Amino acid sequence: MSQRNAIGVDIGGTKILAATVDETGSVLEQIAVATPHSVELVQAAVVQSVRTLLTRHEAHDLGVAAAGLVDHHTGRVRFAPHISWRDEPIRDNLAHALRGDGITSVTLENDANAALCAEWRFGAARGRDHVLLVTVGTGIGGALMSSGQIMRGTNGMAGEFGHMQYAPDGRPCQCGLRGCWEQYASGRALSMQMQSGGELLTGQAILRAANDGDPEAQRAFFMVGQALGLGLADLIAALDPELILIGGGVSMAGELLLGPTRSAMSTRLVGGRHRRVADLDVVALGPAAGAIGAAELARGGAPSL
Amino acid sequence: MSQRNAIGVDIGGTKILAATVDETGSVLEQIAVATPHSVELVQAAVVQSVRTLLTRHEAHDLGVAAAGLVDHHTGRVRFAPHISWRDEPIRDNLAHALRGDGITSVTLENDANAALCAEWRFGAARGRDHVLLVTVGTGIGGALMSSGQIMRGTNGMAGEFGHMQYAPDGRPCQCGLRGCWEQYASGRALSMQMQSGGELLTGQAILRAANDGDPEAQRAFFMVGQALGLGLADLIAALDPELILIGGGVSMAGELLLGPTRSAMSTRLVGGRHRRVADLDVVALGPAAGAIGAAELARGGAPSL
Repeated sequence: MSQRNAIGVDIGGTKILAATVDETGSVLEQIAVATPHSVELVQAAVVQSVRTLLTRHEAHDLGVAAAGLVDHHTGRVRFAPHISWRDEPIRDNLAHALRGDGITSVTLENDANAALCAEWRFGAARGRDHVLLVTVGTGIGGALMSSGQIMRGTNGMAGEFGHMQYAPDGRPCQCGLRGCWEQYASGRALSMQMQSGGELLTGQAILRAANDGDPEAQRAFFMVGQALGLGLADLIAALDPELILIGGGVSMAGELLLGPTRSAMSTRLVGGRHRRVADLDVVALGPAAGAIGAAELARGGAPSL
Repeated sequence: MSQRNAIGVDIGGTKILAATVDETGSVLEQIAVATPHSVELVQAAVVQSVRTLLTRHEAHDLGVAAAGLVDHHTGRVRFAPHISWRDEPIRDNLAHALRGDGITSVTLENDANAALCAEWRFGAARGRDHVLLVTVGTGIGGALMSSGQIMRGTNGMAGEFGHMQYAPDGRPCQCGLRGCWEQYASGRALSMQMQSGGELLTGQAILRAANDGDPEAQRAFFMVGQALGLGLADLIAALDPELILIGGGVSMAGELLLGPTRSAMSTRLVGGRHRRVADLDVVALGPAAGAIGAAELARGGAPSL
C-alpha cells in the first residue's frame, strides 16, 4: 500500500541522498545531489529532493539522517563536522516547509544510527540483538544496538569510537587530541601508510593497487586491518556484541581488510576461551543504508531508546 | 509488608555476604562468612546463611550475585576467577535446596550488574538513565545501564573495562594479555607504583600514608587517578554516559583519586565543547551494594535487558 512508503534523506558531507523506501526496505526511487555549503541551501536542496520524490510516490513520513551531533529528541543538529550547522532546528524547519506537500511527520537521526537501523531491519544485522556498526571511511564512526534498541547516550554522542585512544601520545587527530584510533585504522590511515613518495593516494586507488598485487598497498591494508582489529577487541571487552558490522568506504576491501582485522582481534580478546566471539562482517545495504534507516525510523518501524 | 522483603547474597572471592533487604533497599539483617574453597562448600554456606536469615524475616525471593561470567538466563556461572565453578547450575541447585524453606524464586546475576542495579534504585544513580559503574579494586570491573536497563552483552560479559588496551605492549596482565587498563588504574597498580623498596603495600596502607602526607603515596594516587581518567575518556567516547560511578576499594580514597581522574578525563574528551560532560562520583551503598541489588532483581524491581 502506498501509504506505507516513507522518504529517507541522508545528508552527508559531500552529497545528499534522498530515497522513497517501501516497508520492505526497498528503494523505489532515489535522488543524489551535491551538498551545498550554506545551511539555507542544504535545507532547500532537501525540500526540493523530497518534492521531486513525492511527484512519483505518495508518502507522509520523512526521516532525515545527518552526520554529526544530532539531538533526536529536539530534532536539532547541535554540531556537524562538515556543514556549518550550529544548533539548527532542522526537523521543525523541514516539517514547516513540507507541510503543504503532505508530509505529516519528520524524524531526525544521526547517520550511523540510521544505517544500523537499516541493517538491523533489512540487512546484515537481521535477527541479531547486540550489534556494533563501525564505519571506516575517512575517519571512524559508529553506532550500537542492544536488544534491538539504538543506544544514543546522554548527548546523542555514543558511538564515537574513532576517538578512543589507540596510541598514547600518538599521531595528532583533527579533533585536537593525539593517538585517536581513527589515525591508525581508517581511510586516512591507509593513505598515510602509502605516503612514502610524498603523494597521497585515495583509498580506492590503494585498493586497486593491492588487488593488482602491489606489496606496499597490501601492507597498508594489513597495517590498517591490524589496528582495526586491536581496537575492536577493546569494544568487545566493554560491550560484548554478538556481531560487529564494518561499513564505510574502506569496508569495500572485504577480506583484504577483514583478514588481518579478525586475526589481530583474536589476539587481544579477554576471556576468549569462555565466550562466543563476536562475528565480524561487512554491511549489506551499501551507500543508501542511512536513507533507508531514516525512512524506517520515520515510519516507526525501528525501536529506539 | 514482610512479604516484600527479599534476600540477596553476594558471593565474592573472599567473603559471602547475605542480607535481608526490604523494598526500600534497607538491609534488615546481614551475615558475612569467609568464602570456602570448594563448590559444594560455597553452596552449603549460601544455603546456611539464607536459612539463618529466614528465621528472623519472611522472604520468598532470593537473588544471588557472583563475580565472574554469569549466564543470567540459564542461571549458571560459566566461569569465575576466584572460585572453581565451571558451568555450575547455581540457580537451580539453590532453588532445589531451599524449596522446603519457602524460597520460591532464585535469580542469578553478575556482581557488578547487581551493584549497579542497587545504585540505580537506591543509591548514587537514582533517576539517571545512562550510567557506567567502574569498580576499581585489585583489578577493574564494571557494568553499564542505558535508559535504566542493564546491558549484559551477548555472553553476559559486557563491562570488562579493565582489559581494554591502555598501553600497547605494556605491562603483562593476569588475563594473559599485555597493557590492560587495570594494570595502570587499580589497587594493584597503586601497589606497583609504591614498590620502590621491593615491599608490596596494600591499598589501605597507601591511602593512610597519602593522608598522612607521604609524597610517594600521594604520587601513586595521582598516577593511578590519571590512568583512570584517560581510560574513562575512551568509555565516554564510546558510550556517552551521563554519570560514571566509581566503586571498589580504591574508590574509598575519594577526591585524592577523583581529582586527578577528573582532570585527566577532561584532557581527552572528544567534542568536549559540544557535550555535557559525564558526572563522576563514587558509589553510595558500600560493600552491601551487590547483595542489595541481587535482592532487588529477585523481587523484580530492577528492569534488565
